Amino acid sequence: MRGRREALATIALLAAGACLTPLRVQAAGALPSWNDGPARNAIVAFVERVTKMASLDFVPPPGRIATFDNDGTLWAEQPMYFQLAFALDRVKALAPQHPEWKGKEPFASLLKGDVKGALAGGEHAMLEIVMATHAGMTTEEFERIVNDWIATAKHPTTGRLYTEMVYQPMLELLTYLRANGFKTYIVSGGGIEFMRPWAERVYGVPPEQVVGSSIRTKFELRDGQPVLVRLPEVDFVDDQAGKPVGIQMHIGRRPIAAFGNSDGDLQMLQWVAAGKGQRFCLYVHHDDAVREWAYDRDSHIGRLDQGLDEAAARGWTVVSMKDDWKRVFPFETK
Amino acid sequence: MRGRREALATIALLAAGACLTPLRVQAAGALPSWNDGPARNAIVAFVERVTKMASLDFVPPPGRIATFDNDGTLWAEQPMYFQLAFALDRVKALAPQHPEWKGKEPFASLLKGDVKGALAGGEHAMLEIVMATHAGMTTEEFERIVNDWIATAKHPTTGRLYTEMVYQPMLELLTYLRANGFKTYIVSGGGIEFMRPWAERVYGVPPEQVVGSSIRTKFELRDGQPVLVRLPEVDFVDDQAGKPVGIQMHIGRRPIAAFGNSDGDLQMLQWVAAGKGQRFCLYVHHDDAVREWAYDRDSHIGRLDQGLDEAAARGWTVVSMKDDWKRVFPFETK
Repeated sequence: MRGRREALATIALLAAGACLTPLRVQAAGALPSWNDGPARNAIVAFVERVTKMASLDFVPPPGRIATFDNDGTLWAEQPMYFQLAFALDRVKALAPQHPEWKGKEPFASLLKGDVKGALAGGEHAMLEIVMATHAGMTTEEFERIVNDWIATAKHPTTGRLYTEMVYQPMLELLTYLRANGFKTYIVSGGGIEFMRPWAERVYGVPPEQVVGSSIRTKFELRDGQPVLVRLPEVDFVDDQAGKPVGIQMHIGRRPIAAFGNSDGDLQMLQWVAAGKGQRFCLYVHHDDAVREWAYDRDSHIGRLDQGLDEAAARGWTVVSMKDDWKRVFPFETK
Repeated sequence: MRGRREALATIALLAAGACLTPLRVQAAGALPSWNDGPARNAIVAFVERVTKMASLDFVPPPGRIATFDNDGTLWAEQPMYFQLAFALDRVKALAPQHPEWKGKEPFASLLKGDVKGALAGGEHAMLEIVMATHAGMTTEEFERIVNDWIATAKHPTTGRLYTEMVYQPMLELLTYLRANGFKTYIVSGGGIEFMRPWAERVYGVPPEQVVGSSIRTKFELRDGQPVLVRLPEVDFVDDQAGKPVGIQMHIGRRPIAAFGNSDGDLQMLQWVAAGKGQRFCLYVHHDDAVREWAYDRDSHIGRLDQGLDEAAARGWTVVSMKDDWKRVFPFETK
């Protein structure tokens, strides 16, 4: 009887433990695309410190908030931000309904295939393109447009779907953190409603855990049916000093870990690092020209300059894509 | 051996089931402060429809989003919104640092105890009071101020802490929904950072599930330390047509159930009702002058006029506090 009772008790305990105790999952096997080096070790050491019940640095699960930048941190951002490729494709698709665009910049240049010329108009040109392609429809219509595009559009140099251009080691990291009781958030300069339609499928991040830039929306009754209409007006820019603001607005508590790749993420990392207790800040450094792209201090996309200095000064983890990652994209054969 | 194996299997299954199967909890005993009547029955019938795996109306847990108004729905709102009481107390506390207030409305009237006179200045006066008391400090300082106030301030007629002035049947409803796999959100016209400090303790709703009105914040480095400073500028008003906007911004998907008590919640209920599949909309009707307050169509606080008509026309559930609730406040002796 004793043996049986003990067996029953053990099974019940183990099974209950799987959902009731503060989550803690071993890294062994959880990060297969990471080389056994300082970056991987720093991640694992941090996670073990905050999840071991006996640790002085133990953080109960509700406080285990981790925020991830998207462009250049979870998926690639070269040769142009993928959302910009979306906007350009939308300009082409909408051109027949806008004959006036042929004589109007930045649309005229874009329609002639001259992206550089179109973007020469700077921020104003960019805003014109965004509003022409992201506003004027309901939230549900926009979701459908994004879903249709993301299902078919191909990256200009690899020919892959954009959702294949995600970093395998970061997918594993998201899963590893969640298995250890973390709530994983995206905090991106990209459009919140551009990411939500596919972030759950691709990253396992549900819509309510996506923070991003936004345009204003307006509630209306159309023939008695309520809709939210997207207005051509910037509401919030979730970049640089906007990131801690977006985090406070959406999450309302300070994350204990943050992951980025550019100076646009610096304030988020500063905000996280300044919290009490154990904190973890990581920069992905794009130094792999063979498997991905190599760029940092002088790039106009994803510039990492001040952040690189601050990471060195403060001991933040800097991931070398070249040295720390066995595999960059899921589609690579090893 | 067979008996033992079966016992082991049963225990493992039960224990695993507790966290792995789509959650579904029987209402029996879960809503003890609700009388057995149409409101309680409608709630239970809805929850059973969307949580029974075999049901045509089954909704997987990620889609089980329920949104609750706060003032008048989860806690009382008479004789004035509790956040207004907070603001008035803050004016008194801050007065020594603002000698100029003695000659300046609305502060002069307030400091003489003439609330009505102060509020006679309408929206502008209100805004002056809010900004003088809610802006100019960091987010962490404001959190401390709210925590200090909510721990000690007493309701003017009952003498109870404001956090005791919550509706016992609604607390049970929140718990019942969560036990059935729902994610419960607050979507309130009140200040998001006024509710977050105590919403988890009082309602079981974590900061990231609180949606509310907000003022702008700004990221700053003060002596190298990052802070978020609260600016005297309205950012978002989460009331009426703002509620569906706030829901989309924070949650990014349409709730399947919504709970309110006033015309300020009407657009939220309309937005929820217009979704595909089973939806549940409920109004709390303040008709109990003995245990709480009785007010609806003519009240300037929590007016319920158009909403009452629309609820009747569309078959939404209307809770009579008088008839449907055995107990209103947790402190009542039965």
